[in-house]
Formats: sequence, structure tokens, C-alpha cells
Amino acid sequence: MTRFSRPDVPARGPERRGLMFVLSSPSGAGKTTLSRALLAEDGDITMSVSATTRPPRPGEVDGVDYYFVSPDQFQTMIEGNALLEWATVFGNRYGTPRRPVEDSLAAGRDVLFDIDWQGTQQLQQTDAASDLVRVFILPPHLAELERRLIGRNTDHPEVIADRMARACDEIRHWGEYDYVLVNDDAETCLNEIRAILKAERLRRKRQLGLANFVRGMLGE
Amino acid sequence: MTRFSRPDVPARGPERRGLMFVLSSPSGAGKTTLSRALLAEDGDITMSVSATTRPPRPGEVDGVDYYFVSPDQFQTMIEGNALLEWATVFGNRYGTPRRPVEDSLAAGRDVLFDIDWQGTQQLQQTDAASDLVRVFILPPHLAELERRLIGRNTDHPEVIADRMARACDEIRHWGEYDYVLVNDDAETCLNEIRAILKAERLRRKRQLGLANFVRGMLGE
Repeated sequence: MTRFSRPDVPARGPERRGLMFVLSSPSGAGKTTLSRALLAEDGDITMSVSATTRPPRPGEVDGVDYYFVSPDQFQTMIEGNALLEWATVFGNRYGTPRRPVEDSLAAGRDVLFDIDWQGTQQLQQTDAASDLVRVFILPPHLAELERRLIGRNTDHPEVIADRMARACDEIRHWGEYDYVLVNDDAETCLNEIRAILKAERLRRKRQLGLANFVRGMLGE
Repeated sequence: MTRFSRPDVPARGPERRGLMFVLSSPSGAGKTTLSRALLAEDGDITMSVSATTRPPRPGEVDGVDYYFVSPDQFQTMIEGNALLEWATVFGNRYGTPRRPVEDSLAAGRDVLFDIDWQGTQQLQQTDAASDLVRVFILPPHLAELERRLIGRNTDHPEVIADRMARACDEIRHWGEYDYVLVNDDAETCLNEIRAILKAERLRRKRQLGLANFVRGMLGE
């Protein structure tokens, strides 16, 4: 006489909570290429779309590249706690609308954030911190970025110095991230990003369906 | 005039601290097969060898399968804080010698532990907790294990019931692990184990060489 039966439902894919996948890096570390490759191949992660008060540039689509809002609308979003994080850059405001992110996480879908150390710090201070997976991408060196900026032959030396200083400033925050990658080979680095995402999805705390699954297995 | 130079040393492989990779599961979840496959393909992880007071069985090699020690020697190891965890099973004592594990971790090599929830709890309570990565492997159901035990036709019903009870007892501790896998396909499950190991090796806290690497990049 047996007690344990084979369940009717497949074991794979107990429901899970999505995660917030942050990629930060200085300019020139290849982050944009890596993000695009990840988004193109992985249907379970989508890019977070920021709200901004900056006017659209030619070709930019509202709701795809940004949510374009007025300064008043932006202020209303802040006051209504409708933004997860926000910042002012060169007089324009940028922020992450809370609702689409929370809807995605609850639906078991991951959200990719292409933000700097300041945005990451802000997210870490919210109650979303336990959903956060913070990845920092380092370039193998800064010589390539400097050479590229100089090679353009269009920027004043002080512009170049300013951009290099910004890259160094970003790099100094590597210690605030969960994972750190050195991108000296794009395919190797993409494989590392894939592994981190795959592993983080298997964390017990994100697999909300496991408790029921185990109860069913034990016949309880 | 450039300031940042390409470093002479390769960027990959800043020194890292090894990790303690715990695989726990009830009987019949395929853990032994998965462990062997991982050890065979991955040169950076070795199996932890336990000390035991049980006599060697034919074919077992001292220092490979177990460190075979006398009860007095085992007691001396406990009193000298030379064991990370230990337990008594059916009158025999089993334990994990501290020194080989600590040497491996310091040398940047990982150690695989095939231990149950009690051993895992003991490791979690030591100062090695931050080196610990705890993975629990669930079977898709218990019907297979029960059928296999019954099919042997050699075990008394109470032995079968006892083995099933032990499996259920182990499963009830799934909530104490960092990652939980459901092994309904060995290759999928092995891929998940590979991803977890790859990701955990990329954790900032284990990459001890990063601080120096970044200082060199910034020319500091």
C-alpha cells in the first residue's frame, strides 16, 4: 500500500516573485550592449522605464524610452509616493515610477535597472531592498575610455577630464554592490550576468509557490 | 596627454575566497549523481572529507572516503575545536575537520558538503556562516522513492516507513536553505547548480583582490 502519489501538476515553475536587477557601471564598460543582449534573449525580464521632465528627443517614444511628464506632474508623483527613486541631472528630473515595477514583481517578472550608484543607493533604502540584486560592471582599465574620448577630437580637455572624473566617481562605489564583474570579454561577462540572474531566481525567498508544493508532496 | 594606462596584469581572476557549498536533500532526490557530476567537471571545488569512528568498509580509503579515527581521537578533535560540525549516527561519530576546509577557502578553492539539515544548521552557527551557500534539492514527488523501496522486496514495512519518515523529516527543513531546486530533470538541475556556483563566486565579498584591482585602475 503506497501513501505518496505522483502529483498531477508539473513540479517546475512554482510561482515566484520577480526581482529588481540593477546594472551599474562607468561609461565605457559595455553595460548598454550587455543590457540589450540580456533583454533580447530573456523574456522574463523587462527594462524599467523612467519618468523624466526632459523634452523628448527625435525618435523617442513616450512609454518606451521614457514617460515624458511635466515638472508639475513629476512633483505630484514625488508627493504621492509614486516614485521608487528620483534625481535631478542638469536641471531635468528623472525617476522610477513605482507601480509598473511592483506589478511586474508581483507577476513573477524581473525588472532591469540601468542606474548609477545614487539611484541604487535610493532603491536600497526602500522596502524594495529584498527584491534588489545589484551588479557592478568594471572595465578592465580606463585607458580605452580615455583614448576614445581623446580620439573624438571634438571635446575640450576639460570636458574629457570631467567625463573621466565621473567614471572614476562611479567606480569608487563598486563596494556597494552584491556582485562585481570585470568586462574584459563581452560574452564571458554576459554569461556571468546570465548565471547571476538564473541563480537569484532560484533563491528560496523568491519561490512563493514552494510552501504549497512541499505541503502537497508530504500529503499535508 | 593620457593619465590612465592599460595595466600589465590581466583583469580576470583577482584572488577570491573559496565558499562552502552545501547540498542537502532527502534520499532519492539525485544528490549523489549531481555531486559527482559537479566534482568531475569543476576543478575549483573538492569534496569535504569527513572524519568518522566507524570502521572502514572494503574498498574505502583513509583520507579519500573518510578520515578513519578512533573514538578517543574523535573526542580529542572535538575538544581541540578541530571539527566544524559533528554528529552521532547509530553509535558512530561523524564530523568535518576544520583545517582542510579553512585551508581550501583561503586558497580560493570551494568545498562541497553532502550533509543533512542538522549538519547544515551546525555550520550556519559557526563563524564560517558567511562562506556558506546552502542548496536544498527536492524530488518532484515522493512516489518514486516509495515505489523503489517497496520494489526491493527486502525491507520490512516498518523499515520502509522509517525511511520515508526520514525523507519527510529532511524535506521539512527546506526553508533553512538559500536556494531550493526541484530535481525533475538531472541536466536542468545540474545547470542550476552550475549557475548558483558561478554566481556565488562573483559575489563582491568573496573577490578579495578587487580593492587592489580598482586602486590600480584609478591610479591610486
